[in-house]
Amino acid sequence: MAQSKYEYVKGFESDDALPSGNWIVVRIQGRDFKEFADLHGFQKPNDERALQLMDECAKAILEENTDIVCAYGISDEYSFLIRRGAHQQASNELISATVSLFTSKYVMLWPKFFHDRELECAPAFDARAVCYPTETTVRDYLAWRQVDCHINNVNNTCFWKLREQGLNPSNAHKTLMGTRSSEKKELLSNDFRIDYNALPAKYRKGSLLVRKYLCIYFQPDQTIFHYHDFDVIGDDFWKEHSYILQKARFS
Amino acid sequence: MAQSKYEYVKGFESDDALPSGNWIVVRIQGRDFKEFADLHGFQKPNDERALQLMDECAKAILEENTDIVCAYGISDEYSFLIRRGAHQQASNELISATVSLFTSKYVMLWPKFFHDRELECAPAFDARAVCYPTETTVRDYLAWRQVDCHINNVNNTCFWKLREQGLNPSNAHKTLMGTRSSEKKELLSNDFRIDYNALPAKYRKGSLLVRKYLCIYFQPDQTIFHYHDFDVIGDDFWKEHSYILQKARFS
Amino acid sequence: MAQSKYEYVKGFESDDALPSGNWIVVRIQGRDFKEFADLHGFQKPNDERALQLMDECAKAILEENTDIVCAYGISDEYSFLIRRGAHQQASNELISATVSLFTSKYVMLWPKFFHDRELECAPAFDARAVCYPTETTVRDYLAWRQVDCHINNVNNTCFWKLREQGLNPSNAHKTLMGTRSSEKKELLSNDFRIDYNALPAKYRKGSLLVRKYLCIYFQPDQTIFHYHDFDVIGDDFWKEHSYILQKARFS
Amino acid sequence: MAQSKYEYVKGFESDDALPSGNWIVVRIQGRDFKEFADLHGFQKPNDERALQLMDECAKAILEENTDIVCAYGISDEYSFLIRRGAHQQASNELISATVSLFTSKYVMLWPKFFHDRELECAPAFDARAVCYPTETTVRDYLAWRQVDCHINNVNNTCFWKLREQGLNPSNAHKTLMGTRSSEKKELLSNDFRIDYNALPAKYRKGSLLVRKYLCIYFQPDQTIFHYHDFDVIGDDFWKEHSYILQKARFS
Repeated sequence: MAQSKYEYVKGFESDDALPSGNWIVVRIQGRDFKEFADLHGFQKPNDERALQLMDECAKAILEENTDIVCAYGISDEYSFLIRRGAHQQASNELISATVSLFTSKYVMLWPKFFHDRELECAPAFDARAVCYPTETTVRDYLAWRQVDCHINNVNNTCFWKLREQGLNPSNAHKTLMGTRSSEKKELLSNDFRIDYNALPAKYRKGSLLVRKYLCIYFQPDQTIFHYHDFDVIGDDFWKEHSYILQKARFS
Repeated sequence: MAQSKYEYVKGFESDDALPSGNWIVVRIQGRDFKEFADLHGFQKPNDERALQLMDECAKAILEENTDIVCAYGISDEYSFLIRRGAHQQASNELISATVSLFTSKYVMLWPKFFHDRELECAPAFDARAVCYPTETTVRDYLAWRQVDCHINNVNNTCFWKLREQGLNPSNAHKTLMGTRSSEKKELLSNDFRIDYNALPAKYRKGSLLVRKYLCIYFQPDQTIFHYHDFDVIGDDFWKEHSYILQKARFS
Repeated sequence: MAQSKYEYVKGFESDDALPSGNWIVVRIQGRDFKEFADLHGFQKPNDERALQLMDECAKAILEENTDIVCAYGISDEYSFLIRRGAHQQASNELISATVSLFTSKYVMLWPKFFHDRELECAPAFDARAVCYPTETTVRDYLAWRQVDCHINNVNNTCFWKLREQGLNPSNAHKTLMGTRSSEKKELLSNDFRIDYNALPAKYRKGSLLVRKYLCIYFQPDQTIFHYHDFDVIGDDFWKEHSYILQKARFS
Repeated sequence: MAQSKYEYVKGFESDDALPSGNWIVVRIQGRDFKEFADLHGFQKPNDERALQLMDECAKAILEENTDIVCAYGISDEYSFLIRRGAHQQASNELISATVSLFTSKYVMLWPKFFHDRELECAPAFDARAVCYPTETTVRDYLAWRQVDCHINNVNNTCFWKLREQGLNPSNAHKTLMGTRSSEKKELLSNDFRIDYNALPAKYRKGSLLVRKYLCIYFQPDQTIFHYHDFDVIGDDFWKEHSYILQKARFS
């Protein structure tokens, strides 16, 4: 309805369409979450409540945007994989809709997971959209994140054990500097009698949400499944779950 | 620290820098807010609580991002004006940081303004960034929004008066179709004895937040001022507040 | 070496990298070539000299940019296919280097093909770069161009036969309007005793330049092959020439 | 006319519109021109014929694209300034049309300036488009190029005098390394009795083409003027030629 001589300024809005026919990953990550975690007394190296909260927010995103075929989360980060050839979306619309709903859910669901703690500041997340043209690059993206999860978690587990033992942060860092993951696992085993591989899979491998299509009578239905013990780096997972990357056009 | 053969996928992230040296407007707008407003019983045509909530969320954005020189809000929409030559920001970072913090605040502050109403669904906002190269185009942008505010508010005020009188939505629309704002004001005056210009300025003109630099002794300090009765369309406002557009480089 | 306070303006240059890991098509097309063709007396519907000149310019592009795996030309248009994962290039550099060298060659080689005709104005070409994420979309792109070649050439062949017969442009257009390619072929056969399928393949199918890798002793060598009678729409061509789309990374 | 199931690939073409309302500079530069200059025996440090050829090609660009208000050239480089608010153009169209016509003219006009030398290889140019939002940044861009012209020309003049004297390239470079322009001018004066400021202005200051609007009776006409002795760094030039930057909208 509204019309005025000033409306020409609308012409300055740019079309920021993402390149057609690529897989798109929207990755969100907590903004200044180190401070946020300290302020709210997150347990180290993994806070069960905070991880469950992240998972539940991510689930809401999959329920909202049915073009997302799976999502992978570690720590304060979540990656959403949008199938190739999904309805074309402007980059800013995709980013803002995802990060806004995620944040909204994070605040609303906070009391469900942190019963005895009020939010003391407003949590916020950064988001970016990245295009991957092939199934290989999509798989390598997820493998990259899961390798990161592994390397970070082995390191953090050692770091906090050393801190518990009385080392200050600087000395704990020095002790670990330059050591490989395998050496860190040995340190856990020898000094702390911790079998790293027996720790909860969720902490070692991250969280994976997958949209599955079920055949209920003759009507296809879809449900979101949640995995913790899985390996997106090897081939087996992708053979078993080949449908994930098959929901694409132009393949 | 983390290094793996999969890290090459990071190379697919694109630099999405906004063009240098332009004024940038980040505009956020409620996503499906018609339904959201109905679900939470917003008063029509203006809900005082909802508007105050929007203003307070916007204030938090100005406190966080000191490159924002002013912000203008109407209904479920807010525009943030970032000064020309501000520290270069990637489009996705600027959009996600703004919309995420805004949403976070919206949920956290909800109970302060809606005492007796729980949030029944997760509010979310869309956001976009638009570049304006000159002071003229920036002023015309704000004028565009304020003209829209006026046209929409005159129309909505009439519409809800007709609805109160018993007209159904379809007939209320038909009654107003094709009429000018001046005719709508006459209708309000003649049929409802409402002097439109005497209605609260906030509803007729929107909300303006301005960052002012104060000289306290010899230390510059900045505070955010809130205006309701103002006119960004004419020249007078800009003469009085010339400092707003002077916080730019390359001018 | 050069340094001055003005160098900050270099910061306004934007990174315009094309999205990573896609196949890239650079398509050039004559600018105002209808007028150019008329001015230089091009034969209708196909000018053998002009087509050979286009082919030779295209060959120079393949010799210069070894990331191009093949090129397809019709009329005053040529598409160059750059393999997925080629050294990342800025869009403007790729476009300008291609179109500038093509134009340079076009003017330099003109006398070789048009012995008795001077260039009467400066020929120029438009260029654009388009990204295709998959082998399917690349093949469909080439199929699109070859289908266009077919449809246009059947139509133009009829049109110019009708013109020779004495029809003015308007009536020739009217005669053909709404007819299918098959009906146009029948018209050629019945009215002009022309067997369309016996016309030179180059006019009916376009020109394809393919870079082939030959094994000379133990040293790989590459040579550019030129096809006229080929069909990029069906599967057979791609089975025989599977190496074309195999020169890609991330496949 | 042409329609096929493959046409969906056209949807992969992206809109690459330059940001609205900015001044746009299209800068072209010779590709591998050091080799090109050597191959064709260009005189050092300045080849009069080559510079005149560049100027004439640039003039053709101004005649073709009337949105260009001025152009500035040094060595094998030319910058074209397109007025703010000119008819919106896709980046690739603007770049390719400019560089293609420039190259075409370069080859066609070559024999006019190089009477006794055939083109031995195909000259080509790179091009890029850069956006400048304000008059200040536009002026600073031109100042940047003219300062570069000065610094390079002083240096090259010394370098080739040292070479004439018998120094090899490496020693000539060493002699000049770390010296300022003022010291280089002294070296020219003391060792070679050359008054740098008395050398032709064209070599010291570059070439400026300006479109002027003349009033012939009551009809405005426009002509391109060519300057060599001018200074775009100071204010005087811009006061005298204020019309150049006034041909903009949104100012």
